[in-house]
Amino acid sequence: MTAPDPSAELDRALQANARHVERFVASGLSAEPARRLAVIACMDARLVVEDILDLRPGDAHIIRNAGGLATDDAIRSLVVSQHLLGTRAVLLIEHTGCGMLGFEDGPTRRQIAERQGATVDLPLLPFTDLEANVRAQAERIRGHPWIMDVPVHGLVYDVVSGRLRLVT
Amino acid sequence: MTAPDPSAELDRALQANARHVERFVASGLSAEPARRLAVIACMDARLVVEDILDLRPGDAHIIRNAGGLATDDAIRSLVVSQHLLGTRAVLLIEHTGCGMLGFEDGPTRRQIAERQGATVDLPLLPFTDLEANVRAQAERIRGHPWIMDVPVHGLVYDVVSGRLRLVT
Repeated sequence: MTAPDPSAELDRALQANARHVERFVASGLSAEPARRLAVIACMDARLVVEDILDLRPGDAHIIRNAGGLATDDAIRSLVVSQHLLGTRAVLLIEHTGCGMLGFEDGPTRRQIAERQGATVDLPLLPFTDLEANVRAQAERIRGHPWIMDVPVHGLVYDVVSGRLRLVT
Repeated sequence: MTAPDPSAELDRALQANARHVERFVASGLSAEPARRLAVIACMDARLVVEDILDLRPGDAHIIRNAGGLATDDAIRSLVVSQHLLGTRAVLLIEHTGCGMLGFEDGPTRRQIAERQGATVDLPLLPFTDLEANVRAQAERIRGHPWIMDVPVHGLVYDVVSGRLRLVT
């Protein structure tokens, strides 16, 4: 099998979408998630969040970034989700084998700066202890002054078994 | 039908995950996305990105936030995606009926500050012109010094028809 050519991804996506349109059933779903749930998860390609949690279209907001971190931007999204669109529960999902576990910020940023010919103040936010990081991110969400007093749980997804484990 | 109780979402998620584990096939997929594709999309509950683009587990990084914006955190995720995990194409997807289209930042933040009893410096980043915003986000990605010279496209997803439209 030949590796896919990334420059062909736009054409492939538009063709795939044409098939999606054929089977699409106009739903009348609104912007407010039906399950009043917001999920924060890693961007990892192996995490199909809707499958892992059995979510249907319209059920939940899904916020994703490198690591599944409660960054300022994830908090911004969560504030919009809660205050404008009515969600009242948060699940945060990080996972085994995460790409954010395997490198150091300083040396990696110096390599990127050298490769790109530009220095940028952009911490990449890697971490070393998965479970401790899940706890820290959940605490950041719970403690944020603009996050409502709603259930916030942190979990680890095992990419080998497909299993979720509750951490906090 | 009774509206789902958000405080029951953890239990529901763990039960749903138990069924996911039963049908899970250990894949041996690695952290590097097979299609070398990264997607930035809105957190909206109606956008099941994998379905819209016919992506399988392991195919693509999926970065999501309120609006589908190229924020610093989305750029951080994209830098990790490209420089550490080998992706070489970007699709940015915003959509019709987005919750970010319907409010003003200042008044909304004042309401939230009053409700929560705390002022926070956290712009919510709403926008008024969907297509112009898609162009601006795509430009921000293309112009960032740490983003590689790879194809970057911006699209609008129509939540009523399921159709993607190429903007840039």
